[in-house]
Amino acid sequence: MARIVMKFGGTSMAGIERIRRVAQLVKRQADAGHEVAVVVSAMAGETDRLVNFCREASSLYDPAEYDVVVASGEQVTSGLLAIALQSIGAKARSWLGWQLPVRTIEAHSKARIEEIESDALISAMQSGEIAIIPGFQGLSDDGRVATLGRGGSDTSAVAVAAAVKADRCDIYTDVDGVYTTDPRIVAKARKLKQLTFEEMLELASVGAKVLQTRSVGLAMKENVRIQVLSSFTGDDAPPADSLPGTLIVSDDEVEESEMERQLISGIAYDKNEAKITLTRVPDKPGAVAAIFIPLADAAINVDMIIQNVGRDKGETDVTFTVPQADLPRALDLLDQAQDEIGYNRLIPDTNVAKISVVGVGMRSHAGVASTMFSALADRGVNIQAITTSEIKVSVLIEEDYTELAVRVLHTAYGLDAED
Amino acid sequence: MARIVMKFGGTSMAGIERIRRVAQLVKRQADAGHEVAVVVSAMAGETDRLVNFCREASSLYDPAEYDVVVASGEQVTSGLLAIALQSIGAKARSWLGWQLPVRTIEAHSKARIEEIESDALISAMQSGEIAIIPGFQGLSDDGRVATLGRGGSDTSAVAVAAAVKADRCDIYTDVDGVYTTDPRIVAKARKLKQLTFEEMLELASVGAKVLQTRSVGLAMKENVRIQVLSSFTGDDAPPADSLPGTLIVSDDEVEESEMERQLISGIAYDKNEAKITLTRVPDKPGAVAAIFIPLADAAINVDMIIQNVGRDKGETDVTFTVPQADLPRALDLLDQAQDEIGYNRLIPDTNVAKISVVGVGMRSHAGVASTMFSALADRGVNIQAITTSEIKVSVLIEEDYTELAVRVLHTAYGLDAED
Repeated sequence: MARIVMKFGGTSMAGIERIRRVAQLVKRQADAGHEVAVVVSAMAGETDRLVNFCREASSLYDPAEYDVVVASGEQVTSGLLAIALQSIGAKARSWLGWQLPVRTIEAHSKARIEEIESDALISAMQSGEIAIIPGFQGLSDDGRVATLGRGGSDTSAVAVAAAVKADRCDIYTDVDGVYTTDPRIVAKARKLKQLTFEEMLELASVGAKVLQTRSVGLAMKENVRIQVLSSFTGDDAPPADSLPGTLIVSDDEVEESEMERQLISGIAYDKNEAKITLTRVPDKPGAVAAIFIPLADAAINVDMIIQNVGRDKGETDVTFTVPQADLPRALDLLDQAQDEIGYNRLIPDTNVAKISVVGVGMRSHAGVASTMFSALADRGVNIQAITTSEIKVSVLIEEDYTELAVRVLHTAYGLDAED
Repeated sequence: MARIVMKFGGTSMAGIERIRRVAQLVKRQADAGHEVAVVVSAMAGETDRLVNFCREASSLYDPAEYDVVVASGEQVTSGLLAIALQSIGAKARSWLGWQLPVRTIEAHSKARIEEIESDALISAMQSGEIAIIPGFQGLSDDGRVATLGRGGSDTSAVAVAAAVKADRCDIYTDVDGVYTTDPRIVAKARKLKQLTFEEMLELASVGAKVLQTRSVGLAMKENVRIQVLSSFTGDDAPPADSLPGTLIVSDDEVEESEMERQLISGIAYDKNEAKITLTRVPDKPGAVAAIFIPLADAAINVDMIIQNVGRDKGETDVTFTVPQADLPRALDLLDQAQDEIGYNRLIPDTNVAKISVVGVGMRSHAGVASTMFSALADRGVNIQAITTSEIKVSVLIEEDYTELAVRVLHTAYGLDAED
């Protein structure tokens, strides 16, 4: 018998038929003797509808009132799932954010969960009642409704799991797990049985959109085991106690099953970066700072940075990447600072992609980066920039080569599924 | 300067454009220096949508979870009206039912308001902030969301007005006041400047669907002055301090302006009654009780009752009316009780209408009933039954004569508007 938190996203909650299906999945866990809490999103499309109402009412809407409006979506699905569970003979009730309460801090519309009062929740669960909690929301310290920002329901689920000391937080989505790479690019992509929080953070932030990054960070901090799995598995759904999805766990837990480990867990890509090159920057103290301080002040996140060896004495080219959405602002700021920085030309390039190889295994194995570089070189893919971290190597390449590069690396690291 | 509660129904809140228009009406009152609280309904159609979700999820839904789902409609419009008011420069915030709280008692989905904690509300209003309160809902004594039953927002508005000791509760609807009768039947129907709570109760319960009956009863008990007026008056809306609608006030207040009083305030009609006649009921003690006790036990509301003089010695015919919706059940019960009652035949008739003449003035004037009977007789309208109260005379007639009877009486009591 375990204590499990189950989380269902908007696609799983879109309409009464799907909510009935969710009720069946939840009841199966309860019937197996587990204590169950469920965190739900609003019906797919509903949050957009409510956000648009707020925008129509005023382009500068009050975040506290926005929260009142938008939080209603999850309130509706919480009540409906309770009704659907009761109708198939399960004991269930909804607990709204202000009822537990789920205490939040910081600003309305982008609140963070500080604490969840879990006593009532735990005793309800221990009595065999399924607890249903609307995701994405809580009670602000001004006594009003607060929401966590888009996608916050994953974070709610992990926070509830931490508060009730759950054995596992099962995140049901429209995919059945985390894959070694995007299956739309590599047909032989494999579903991972498990990976670490750190690996998931690297894979999520560079393109594998399965879990909200914040929720993975919280799970790592609170050591909440997450399972990612699909709510659309048909009637041949696995029994309640199997782990059919991808388990995301701490480093320690992975260590214990080291034999199963791959060197590399996955290949990610990101086409949303833009490259900026400044030519003939004076090669003197303070020049590089003059470039990056105005960008940091404007909260523009600079990712990869390379400083080329100067062609002429006392001069150097500086290249770096920023999110494409921030490119116009970044160019504007650098243009204004041209005299101060003293560069010659400002060259933007959006025709780039970042390809990343991720795996905790690379900590103890040399040669991961060189395998990457030679595999790409063999197929004529030119590398424009490189960054590395303890568990990741990323390269910047021309965007047109993205799919080729992902496939080449997937094969090079032995990730292809066997037929 | 006054303290005013304004209430807007679902039609007035249907979409952002209309919410903007409501914001203008509210701001005009605030700009005139009044302290303002606003009670809102859900967008027209939204409550139906949410109720249908519950019904789809389970035909036997849990009323407590139904309340969680359905209360979200007013939560949304509360937040949106706050945003719309802020966008035109007014100070405003929403106060949800659980925040004040609006304490309710009795069952979920048909709760009654017990008490509204008004301290925070009053100090907000005194500071010049417009308080927006979702109608129809409150906090049950189990700490959960409770709703008041359909149409409960009128009642919420009156309860808020009583709690903050408002000078007036303005109910904005899609008509601009209470009329002497249905303007669709009598083109010369006049808008009433004022009438008493008792008159409004009689007019509402017999057909003039302007205000929820419960809210009028509460207003009478708490002595809350109500004004009924339209939220669709166009740009030529009256200034904030005029009273363009119909004022519903206590008897005492009307007495003071007696000169303006009409003998009769209005003519109402109701086509939703059904007549039942039992022939040849034994004229002995207990026979009538045997008819009405089973109906009362089944919560079927019997309205008009007439006992005809027996044709044969020791026998009598008994005729009475019930709501048409309850007719099948009533017939079934009476059929089962035939032996006990001892009647001969059971004759239902749905081809009837009740016409009522209402006015507090009839207390002090004789001849109201006789005017009614002779006016109807002159035009060949046969009266099947009569009931009277202190401020009302009602007759049952054949349904086809409804419009004729209403027009005849409207003229007979001098209610026709002058051209």
